[in-house]
Amino acid sequence: MSEHTRLQIGKAALAQVDGSAADSVMHSLETIAPDVGKYILEFAFGDIYTRPVLDLKHREMITITSLLIQGDTAPQLDVHINGALNVGLTQEEIIETFIQCIPYIGFPKVLNAISTAKSVFVNRTA
Amino acid sequence: MSEHTRLQIGKAALAQVDGSAADSVMHSLETIAPDVGKYILEFAFGDIYTRPVLDLKHREMITITSLLIQGDTAPQLDVHINGALNVGLTQEEIIETFIQCIPYIGFPKVLNAISTAKSVFVNRTA
Amino acid sequence: MSEHTRLQIGKAALAQVDGSAADSVMHSLETIAPDVGKYILEFAFGDIYTRPVLDLKHREMITITSLLIQGDTAPQLDVHINGALNVGLTQEEIIETFIQCIPYIGFPKVLNAISTAKSVFVNRTA
Amino acid sequence: MSEHTRLQIGKAALAQVDGSAADSVMHSLETIAPDVGKYILEFAFGDIYTRPVLDLKHREMITITSLLIQGDTAPQLDVHINGALNVGLTQEEIIETFIQCIPYIGFPKVLNAISTAKSVFVNRTA
Amino acid sequence: MSEHTRLQIGKAALAQVDGSAADSVMHSLETIAPDVGKYILEFAFGDIYTRPVLDLKHREMITITSLLIQGDTAPQLDVHINGALNVGLTQEEIIETFIQCIPYIGFPKVLNAISTAKSVFVNRTA
Amino acid sequence: MSEHTRLQIGKAALAQVDGSAADSVMHSLETIAPDVGKYILEFAFGDIYTRPVLDLKHREMITITSLLIQGDTAPQLDVHINGALNVGLTQEEIIETFIQCIPYIGFPKVLNAISTAKSVFVNRTA
Repeated sequence: MSEHTRLQIGKAALAQVDGSAADSVMHSLETIAPDVGKYILEFAFGDIYTRPVLDLKHREMITITSLLIQGDTAPQLDVHINGALNVGLTQEEIIETFIQCIPYIGFPKVLNAISTAKSVFVNRTA
Repeated sequence: MSEHTRLQIGKAALAQVDGSAADSVMHSLETIAPDVGKYILEFAFGDIYTRPVLDLKHREMITITSLLIQGDTAPQLDVHINGALNVGLTQEEIIETFIQCIPYIGFPKVLNAISTAKSVFVNRTA
Repeated sequence: MSEHTRLQIGKAALAQVDGSAADSVMHSLETIAPDVGKYILEFAFGDIYTRPVLDLKHREMITITSLLIQGDTAPQLDVHINGALNVGLTQEEIIETFIQCIPYIGFPKVLNAISTAKSVFVNRTA
Repeated sequence: MSEHTRLQIGKAALAQVDGSAADSVMHSLETIAPDVGKYILEFAFGDIYTRPVLDLKHREMITITSLLIQGDTAPQLDVHINGALNVGLTQEEIIETFIQCIPYIGFPKVLNAISTAKSVFVNRTA
Repeated sequence: MSEHTRLQIGKAALAQVDGSAADSVMHSLETIAPDVGKYILEFAFGDIYTRPVLDLKHREMITITSLLIQGDTAPQLDVHINGALNVGLTQEEIIETFIQCIPYIGFPKVLNAISTAKSVFVNRTA
Repeated sequence: MSEHTRLQIGKAALAQVDGSAADSVMHSLETIAPDVGKYILEFAFGDIYTRPVLDLKHREMITITSLLIQGDTAPQLDVHINGALNVGLTQEEIIETFIQCIPYIGFPKVLNAISTAKSVFVNRTA
């Protein structure tokens, strides 16, 4: 597969997950680190998100769990809570994903993620 | 719901996920911190794992992601890779869950989790 | 012990630590994840904070250390620095707790915690 | 205070906490990074452990909490569980310190710390 | 070496890295935890930054990597991106340092660090 | 650039850093997750390590810092301490890199990294 193709495939995958957030991240990287934007498209979305075995709903469930657990990722969690909703997870499933993390990381990071989710949910209905 | 009931419900939930590992963890806590075993049964399994909205396959997918991301959790990852297989995730889905984490945490912790999975998979077929 | 009792006991324990912060956290969870509020009351405060062997001053010392070390917990650290003062730790003991963490986590997270403490101390005297 | 004095003070403080473990850590650093041993004595033990406001029991309680939360610190936790016992914390207070961390970091790292404590407790009675 | 000398040496080292940020951090610690400011000067800058083998450019490269990886360190990363530029790293080398971290920690924390760098770069040309 | 080319470039870059460790990692992934090995070659080594601006010595200095700070990465640190030596960093520079991390992450993880380095240095002279 050519690099050009990976970029195209990545753009298509990211568009399914969160088109407008993607544009905004790519735009902010444009003058300072455009290759990082390219790697996100080619590698994260082109290579990984398009793999078989798990669908986009499962992939977003894993992604928001990853972001909650490692912490200090509120902007990325905002993008991927939106992405999770876009690919078909419900608000209830997103909150339930966070609740399942409590026994493994405790309450503070779960409260942070719920707080980010709350503002995403409010913004989408606004 | 009485505390006794939560304990019973937790035991039943844990038995579905991984009965023999559970026995072994509870046994190792018995003399030193038996209440921690009780909280794992009552709270983690009794309260959380039995909640609606997500099934046990999703819960184990979230759990193994949590354990991979935070790191230094090989013994718990061993238990829950077994648990994931017990509730119906395939080996391919488990490895794919770990691969989905690469863009969010990099290669080292994913390699650690794959290495734990490899030894679990081998032991189960042995 | 019935679940109702655990909830009552947890509410009483949390009231000792930080009544108004508790109300505010519970209120913010009400529409989006009320069960998480319930678990904080029942499990964190009902089951754990009320255990024997360590008093509330020691428990808050351990809690603020936990929050400092894991990072990305400024809102929770704000609540528990207030809680630590409420149960009788002095400002000097709280800062000294943070200083004891320097050899084990380095300066950056200690500076973050001191900065949160500074704003809590100022707000309480205002 | 001269550097020589800081080194002497640090050695005395470390001897109170855990003389033999200290010798072993310093010995292992001797050929590869002797200055790190010097900084541990001068800065961690000479400057920090000897400060007023908190006694050695509180300092070890904070230290073992720090080590549990950040994870991947089993050898250091072994040293400081021994140190905690040496300065007067009981086995029950050490386990209770770990239990207080559950709401803030979840079960896996608490189980790891309890497992290290168990082997320390057994070795000391052997 | 006397403590007074370590303080002087530390002040000189910090002045090379980032004089105005240093003043601001020390000033903010003055009323609440002045000893922490003293330890940053004496130990971090007096003892560590002035060591041989690595020059200040390498030390700042290691420091900004440390801050990116552990996360929740935006204020410190701001200081040390400025410091890195002050001791002679170029904007391109700083961004490239962050890009080298992608395989080891994934995209989210690298995006956070790039975002902090972007605002530092803009402020310095303003 | 074609994917085939990226793979070839990645293999060449990895061979410069650590040929035998690479073979061993790829071999261990072969039956369980061969694509992860491919991504390490194509993305980490093909795309990232071969970028301009920083040479391989700087890249390995950043990599071993990343691994030290995040923790639970002893096997990867072993590979990259070897890699650092292979591309021309001295033993003194590697230890000094770790010492520079002390003010930013504290002693425990630095001691872990020094312990891994010690065994790598001994094995290479054996």
